Amino acid sequence: MGICEIIEKKRDGVELSKDEIGSFVSGCVSGTIPDYQASALLMAICVRGMGFRETLGLTEAMASSGARLDLSDIPGRKVDKHSTGGVGDKVSIILAPLVASCGLVVPMVSGRGLAHTGGTLDKLESIPGFRTNLSLTQFKANLRDIGVSIISQTEELVPADRKLYALRDVTGTVASIPLIAASIMSKKASEGTDSLVLDIKVGRGGFMKRADQARELGHLMTRIGREMGLTVVALLTSAEQPLGKAVGNSLEVQEAISVLRGESASEDLLEVTLELSSHMLLLGGRAHDLGEARNLVRSTLQSGRGLSKLRELIGRQGGDSSVVENPERLGRPEFQMEVTSRETGYVAQVDALEIGLASNQLGAGRETIDQEVDRSVGIFLAKKVGEEVSRGERLATIYANSQAKGEEAKERVYRAFKIAKEKAKPPTMVIGILRAG
Amino acid sequence: MGICEIIEKKRDGVELSKDEIGSFVSGCVSGTIPDYQASALLMAICVRGMGFRETLGLTEAMASSGARLDLSDIPGRKVDKHSTGGVGDKVSIILAPLVASCGLVVPMVSGRGLAHTGGTLDKLESIPGFRTNLSLTQFKANLRDIGVSIISQTEELVPADRKLYALRDVTGTVASIPLIAASIMSKKASEGTDSLVLDIKVGRGGFMKRADQARELGHLMTRIGREMGLTVVALLTSAEQPLGKAVGNSLEVQEAISVLRGESASEDLLEVTLELSSHMLLLGGRAHDLGEARNLVRSTLQSGRGLSKLRELIGRQGGDSSVVENPERLGRPEFQMEVTSRETGYVAQVDALEIGLASNQLGAGRETIDQEVDRSVGIFLAKKVGEEVSRGERLATIYANSQAKGEEAKERVYRAFKIAKEKAKPPTMVIGILRAG
Repeated sequence: MGICEIIEKKRDGVELSKDEIGSFVSGCVSGTIPDYQASALLMAICVRGMGFRETLGLTEAMASSGARLDLSDIPGRKVDKHSTGGVGDKVSIILAPLVASCGLVVPMVSGRGLAHTGGTLDKLESIPGFRTNLSLTQFKANLRDIGVSIISQTEELVPADRKLYALRDVTGTVASIPLIAASIMSKKASEGTDSLVLDIKVGRGGFMKRADQARELGHLMTRIGREMGLTVVALLTSAEQPLGKAVGNSLEVQEAISVLRGESASEDLLEVTLELSSHMLLLGGRAHDLGEARNLVRSTLQSGRGLSKLRELIGRQGGDSSVVENPERLGRPEFQMEVTSRETGYVAQVDALEIGLASNQLGAGRETIDQEVDRSVGIFLAKKVGEEVSRGERLATIYANSQAKGEEAKERVYRAFKIAKEKAKPPTMVIGILRAG
Repeated sequence: MGICEIIEKKRDGVELSKDEIGSFVSGCVSGTIPDYQASALLMAICVRGMGFRETLGLTEAMASSGARLDLSDIPGRKVDKHSTGGVGDKVSIILAPLVASCGLVVPMVSGRGLAHTGGTLDKLESIPGFRTNLSLTQFKANLRDIGVSIISQTEELVPADRKLYALRDVTGTVASIPLIAASIMSKKASEGTDSLVLDIKVGRGGFMKRADQARELGHLMTRIGREMGLTVVALLTSAEQPLGKAVGNSLEVQEAISVLRGESASEDLLEVTLELSSHMLLLGGRAHDLGEARNLVRSTLQSGRGLSKLRELIGRQGGDSSVVENPERLGRPEFQMEVTSRETGYVAQVDALEIGLASNQLGAGRETIDQEVDRSVGIFLAKKVGEEVSRGERLATIYANSQAKGEEAKERVYRAFKIAKEKAKPPTMVIGILRAG
């Protein structure tokens, strides 16, 4: 069956066969299917949807479009964590070394920031010398020697996803639950992990604005995982306000280091990190139940072993590991501007989307995949939802390399904050836990 | 608003504004909108549909994408006829000279065959020397001097339609009533006609298989016409079996000539031609009612003035006008093969789609727009629906340039014919007549 007939089938809402999906994916990668046909089919999928068998077929075809990493010769259970992307989400930088120092292997193939969200790779690259573009051989060597490595997608892994994602990004076909699930799960299936904890962000700062959409995506990914031999647990976590206090690449690395040093941490960041880490330990067989897992994570954090592991990780990937002791080496931008409250009351909202966009305006994010990011700029939140604030008191600090951009960002930060007369409760961070079946 | 936001709006089923549609059309023509974005939007339109205001906006934007012919300096009322495409549809070759010889101006910008249907231009080009690629200046000169001209779309007219149609053809986005309506009506609005009779084919041989779809398309086009200052009447005509007896380019020209000579004609072909012509005369003010129009067409046909006008038309467009007297000059292919009935009974069906595909197999049609066609090959139907046939009697003759292709076509012709014990009624040819409002 030709590609036109396949497009017409999906246009009319008919289920595609495994072979049809396979020939679409391989044609896209080989270039025999031109972009204009691929985007027509992607739009038909977006509007008509895909059933479970179709989504699984797409995920499998994408995962098989390139190399699949085999980690079976590395001793220990491999557990990864993947987030759908949030504002201020520096969890991987804390959790990966923490979980690795609990005795699991953490193979992380991470992403870059896109739209209003940041990316782990951009954050790590604010550490002088840190390299994320390791070869798969170097990646495996790190996993074997220190139990953790965080790299960017290589040319060999999942070429179909790189191709289709770039196309979806410019054709209005990103917002499709089956396509999002296939993109994430094909990447995770190709990196050779045994199990996976998903962090699905829900709310203004995430790509899923509503809990029902997030739940649908989570269920779909756990089912795909089961069919592909990958144990998956999906957590739905709140993304109404930014996670933690820092937004912006080097600022977030500093906050991550501070958590690993055991300094007083933002409650929401600590909660999400501990919960995700505990589920990883449970999947990896390091604890019998969630309570035991949580105790192990807490004690490992307090012991400083997570911090030592981060130092090792930075060193192995070419970075200046002394930043762990001297975070000021990460560099500061030219301007610091305070945002002070115009009212007295309680913080009722810190809109994560607005803060993400403000951070982008400063230069911390990118609008297209090839844009350069300014790793020194960002926003530090002095107040979060539920806290009391007096008129004239600091709400946030803006770190900028241009006075004008700083002023623009300031206006957005003001818009992000809602101050109310009555005390608001901080949001519940873990909204749901989903497992296959 | 950027093209991505426009695509996302239509993806979500939101109505597009006139400006958004305009920027899409102009971006496609200028090339600033790449094909992969255009095809994503076309697919979203296909699945989500378009409201009347949107379809009108698209038609207007397309019509304004190139030159618009001004025929106001040519005396007389201008009336065109357009068919959505059928099998054996040689009506234009009879009707255009016939209506012109009744005193109206007939400006026809015609199409080529596509899929299983033939095209008027391909048929006319089987006349030695006949040129359809006239300049707009030559076209106007013909209209002024002899009242009729039939040409192909030029580079100047409706570039948006050429661009979008080529893309739709390869992205599964042809089957959309708003897109079909905008394509046809933008072309007709640009050619400068005052009024238009549409022949919407319904049934196995047409692109609209069902009467309700055809009716929807017809209503839409008459409404668009009214908004654009073009009087439109749409006829729904049956395309269950091929129209007339000949299918294939030169064979159809011969049949058209034979009708204009007043020789005994196939009932269905005569009926459709007379009905369409009568509506043209009515729109052009040459008659007060349909009865009077029909009498005028009949008497003009009998007078031979239609035939003389065809001779003039052929001469003006560089063709050998002696074919009108000596149709054998159109050339015959190498092989003639008879298809004889395997049963005795009555013809219950001659499947127009199968006959169209059989004719294509012989080389008479094209699958892609740049393919060469063999103008000498085709199929002549000796029997049509309702006629009696005995075992061994001829059903059809195949004209081929390859024995193997002839044999293949023969099997298809057998499949097209259904012979029943009971006499079937020939189909009603004119199923409906639609006017704006």
